[in-house]
Amino acid sequence: MRACCLILASLSLVWAAEPADWIVTARFVVPMDLSKRVIDNGAVAVRGKLILAIGARADIDRSYTPKKRLDRGEAILLPGLINTHTHAPMSLLRGIADDLRLQDWLEKYIFPAEAKNVNRDFVRWGTLLACAEMMLSGTTTYTDMYYFEDTIAEATRQCGMRGVLGETIIGFPAPDYKTPAETLVATRKFIAQFKNDALIVPAVAPHAIYTNSAETLQAAAKLADEMDAPMLIHVSETKKENDDAFAKYKMSPTAYLNSLNAIARRTLFAHAVWTDAGDWSIMARRHIGVAHCPSSNMKLASGVAPVERIRRAGVAVGLGPDGPAGSNNDFNMFEEMDLAAKLSKVTTMNPESLPARDVVAMATIEGARALQMESSIGSLEPGKRADLITVRIDQPNALPWHDVYAMLVYALKGSDVRDVMIDGRWTVVDRHVVTLDWPEVARHAKQIRAQVEASLH
Amino acid sequence: MRACCLILASLSLVWAAEPADWIVTARFVVPMDLSKRVIDNGAVAVRGKLILAIGARADIDRSYTPKKRLDRGEAILLPGLINTHTHAPMSLLRGIADDLRLQDWLEKYIFPAEAKNVNRDFVRWGTLLACAEMMLSGTTTYTDMYYFEDTIAEATRQCGMRGVLGETIIGFPAPDYKTPAETLVATRKFIAQFKNDALIVPAVAPHAIYTNSAETLQAAAKLADEMDAPMLIHVSETKKENDDAFAKYKMSPTAYLNSLNAIARRTLFAHAVWTDAGDWSIMARRHIGVAHCPSSNMKLASGVAPVERIRRAGVAVGLGPDGPAGSNNDFNMFEEMDLAAKLSKVTTMNPESLPARDVVAMATIEGARALQMESSIGSLEPGKRADLITVRIDQPNALPWHDVYAMLVYALKGSDVRDVMIDGRWTVVDRHVVTLDWPEVARHAKQIRAQVEASLH
Repeated sequence: MRACCLILASLSLVWAAEPADWIVTARFVVPMDLSKRVIDNGAVAVRGKLILAIGARADIDRSYTPKKRLDRGEAILLPGLINTHTHAPMSLLRGIADDLRLQDWLEKYIFPAEAKNVNRDFVRWGTLLACAEMMLSGTTTYTDMYYFEDTIAEATRQCGMRGVLGETIIGFPAPDYKTPAETLVATRKFIAQFKNDALIVPAVAPHAIYTNSAETLQAAAKLADEMDAPMLIHVSETKKENDDAFAKYKMSPTAYLNSLNAIARRTLFAHAVWTDAGDWSIMARRHIGVAHCPSSNMKLASGVAPVERIRRAGVAVGLGPDGPAGSNNDFNMFEEMDLAAKLSKVTTMNPESLPARDVVAMATIEGARALQMESSIGSLEPGKRADLITVRIDQPNALPWHDVYAMLVYALKGSDVRDVMIDGRWTVVDRHVVTLDWPEVARHAKQIRAQVEASLH
Repeated sequence: MRACCLILASLSLVWAAEPADWIVTARFVVPMDLSKRVIDNGAVAVRGKLILAIGARADIDRSYTPKKRLDRGEAILLPGLINTHTHAPMSLLRGIADDLRLQDWLEKYIFPAEAKNVNRDFVRWGTLLACAEMMLSGTTTYTDMYYFEDTIAEATRQCGMRGVLGETIIGFPAPDYKTPAETLVATRKFIAQFKNDALIVPAVAPHAIYTNSAETLQAAAKLADEMDAPMLIHVSETKKENDDAFAKYKMSPTAYLNSLNAIARRTLFAHAVWTDAGDWSIMARRHIGVAHCPSSNMKLASGVAPVERIRRAGVAVGLGPDGPAGSNNDFNMFEEMDLAAKLSKVTTMNPESLPARDVVAMATIEGARALQMESSIGSLEPGKRADLITVRIDQPNALPWHDVYAMLVYALKGSDVRDVMIDGRWTVVDRHVVTLDWPEVARHAKQIRAQVEASLH
């Protein structure tokens, strides 16, 4: 009888074991799904580009036979982080001008440097440099607005990163296109080109209301909806932007966009610092997401977005480091998490404001919701894309272990990220970016730096 | 004639070359001395515990013959960072309670956890854990207020770190001493014991005005001056502390201490969030330094110290991470630098506020001035203690190189610290702490975590 039972048990094991490409295990697995659970000694099974299963390590090991496995032991396994706002190639302008007033920064440094240096070569190497930094600090998806966006898309794909990418539409001559009309045409082509890419989500990206005509804004939203693409736009970043909107249109930037019907079905506002309750109700109604950029808003002295109240109004808020040239100067989502939590507490004078789990959500599933991509990324759930990271917890700053969310937000660093998988492919293994030639990227970054320096003198 | 010149040149080389223990070289050397220079391809020569010389690599190589050398190439070499306020052994309570109101945090978690767990063993392992983390993120001197401070001093010495350490004097029973009178007696003994130590600066540390009687505060200041020791005290951390002082004494905490003559010759105020112009003039006149703790003040929603105005009043301001249990939760001076700069900008709505070089100064030479230790630490100058760090600049977040100070504050991380020398001894080499047994520390941290967890249920 006993032997019979054993045979049956073995058979059921053999019957149940499905094939998988990878099993990844870690001391703590944080799915960021609706259950809010943390799985002790957990595992994720991956097949192709997708997550097959998630659960206790013993259960996953029993149910799946992987081709390969990665057992990380003292680590947290969580969804890859989602950067909802940046300007990646500006990595090459990092540190050329800091601690300056916005106008001086833009007019004396950034605009001249961009006018003289930004071309396909600059954008390509700048994107590779940025992607290396983003992946090494745990970002798997990033959202970008810059120029030569098709080159950015190619470089992003080369790195194996996921990108929501939009060519900046702006009412003055840009390094690639000279008019918004030209840029709209190019954007349509860009979207058609990358529409079915596994990694790239092409977007429409009008810069802001103060740099575009009403007609351009309307055409941008129309194009986005027609192509079923997201629309990315800076909104209410500075007080001046708001004051000017009220002076000119007698309403806020959000209300102005709404009045123009220049809001697409999938719209993401970057910053939203100076928005108010009226704006939030429009944003909630129109399913507009927000990219909160605490580093940038602090460093440029733009102000503090009322994140807690925006979220309470039913708006999904993600996090973004913004560009690294003056407004940050890095792409580190762990720092944005830490800052978002602390900035909300001190500005509301309430230490309970924006607790750690909410902030991890903003960097993952809520960021995905802000981009309306929550059905495919942002949490570890069967059927979703296999975008995941491991974070080591065996170093002094990680000990002792108590609340996993508090560890992620307040104690762990981007540099604790050990491995990164995007769309089922390892892009970082044990802190080495395996999808690009780092010495070559570093060499080009230094060469371009010398050109930028020379161009400013 | 030509041969003769060559012989003479060789002879002068031989004559001039003085012995040194170490030559350390790096792409950029940042002395933080009055010259404000950055030395391209620089070097530092060290003999015994002291800096012998600093300058261009070629000059140092010509003038000194070292026993050993460390050529770090793509790195910044700068003075070790000075943490002016923390509670090191609280590392073991990291993450037990976050995102809570101060009273809940203290009364439901910290006080019970401390009452049940803090003993010599806890303090010893907590200090070693903290020192490992501090050194790995570039701190060479730290300032501490906790219990069993003599055990903290022994552990700090064991790690090879420099510590300004004071036993907390507080008007209720502490884990070691039961009354302020007992603690004052113990402090006198503690100071006598460590007075001539190369690494430890023993201090007198009354907790705050609201936890000590006027008599205790006066006795503490008197003891500090008598023993020529620094006095460390929390001042104006919260609005409540200030409101209570005005209600009770009709004056600010600073004015109250001044009225009691309870300010020692060397006094350091931690926090100073709610101080005003009247306080700053007292602080400047009495040479009181400030430990600015941006992370802690944000996370606990204490408020924002008006750092720019305090410094403009002539007060030296250093940086501190505060304790890692709820108020931070780490000991990372790179994050405090980044936060200090950004917090000052957004709260003054001026992006020029607290520029990068000022912030690096606060973390080094100005921190030393706040502690009145600028004659021995805080900058790389001949005759000063050899406390120095190297920071790698060959990773994605470091490229391209422009302003070295902006790199240090806004782009480089604690994890980019590669080597640490304290008092002429290497304590971290290539990111390995060589002065302690890390697996043993980690094992004890985990054991104590289990005890703490059990004690709270």
